[in-house]
Amino acid sequence: MLGYINFFDGNNLMNCELCLSSGETLLFRDEKLRVILVDDADYPGFCRVIWHDHVKEMSDLNEADRRHLFDWIMHTERAVRAVLNPDKINLASLGNMVPHLHWHVIPRFSDDPHFPAPIWAQARREGRRRTHSALAEKLKAALPA
Amino acid sequence: MLGYINFFDGNNLMNCELCLSSGETLLFRDEKLRVILVDDADYPGFCRVIWHDHVKEMSDLNEADRRHLFDWIMHTERAVRAVLNPDKINLASLGNMVPHLHWHVIPRFSDDPHFPAPIWAQARREGRRRTHSALAEKLKAALPA
Repeated sequence: MLGYINFFDGNNLMNCELCLSSGETLLFRDEKLRVILVDDADYPGFCRVIWHDHVKEMSDLNEADRRHLFDWIMHTERAVRAVLNPDKINLASLGNMVPHLHWHVIPRFSDDPHFPAPIWAQARREGRRRTHSALAEKLKAALPA
Repeated sequence: MLGYINFFDGNNLMNCELCLSSGETLLFRDEKLRVILVDDADYPGFCRVIWHDHVKEMSDLNEADRRHLFDWIMHTERAVRAVLNPDKINLASLGNMVPHLHWHVIPRFSDDPHFPAPIWAQARREGRRRTHSALAEKLKAALPA
């Protein structure tokens, strides 16, 4: 709902919900990262790109890993644009609650609950619910194989 | 204050406050982008990396330009970490109000007004005011020449 993750103790690997990965809608996974579709009725198509290792900041990655992660944020942005044609893309790496490197790729529409404010601000309206059939399959197909 | 920009008509180049650049504390500028220190008493060290051209999304840039911008986001993150040693870095490209590509690089502290929520959420506390002498000069010195 809020686009960030409530979490008991994000500094502890054993309790880090991003180190675990149960019940996710997986769109892509390789040896370094995974891309998931976030289950948010207000923000269909909201995706997260999650680095596998419990690393805190982008600048903690080596150059090759950082480029790989960034490339997949861009692949995800392109897939979300192609499938949903949003008015704007929002990208964010926050991780204040869960200091495990992950990126939000959020399709924004002028009639969504928070627009033009960030999705973490107070909602301004109910927001028009968009229904999408087979959204995960469409996004998977729009990502590089 | 809110970390995003109130704006009259962001779709219009002539009115785009990011196309203009008056009254900014400039940390770096080249032929493609500029890095500025945001004037926010609650978030000293909050920087913005602003692309010169009025481009909407990261995926609208060509590969070389996108890498250049991303490299400077990382240079800025490293400089902010080196100078302020924050508990967390937040990175975000939103642009819902001003669809002109710009990135927020925000040093977060556990006692800042919103932590651990994003700075766009409702404030949780007054926040401890940190004073920094010569912050712009220190950040400039920590960025590549």
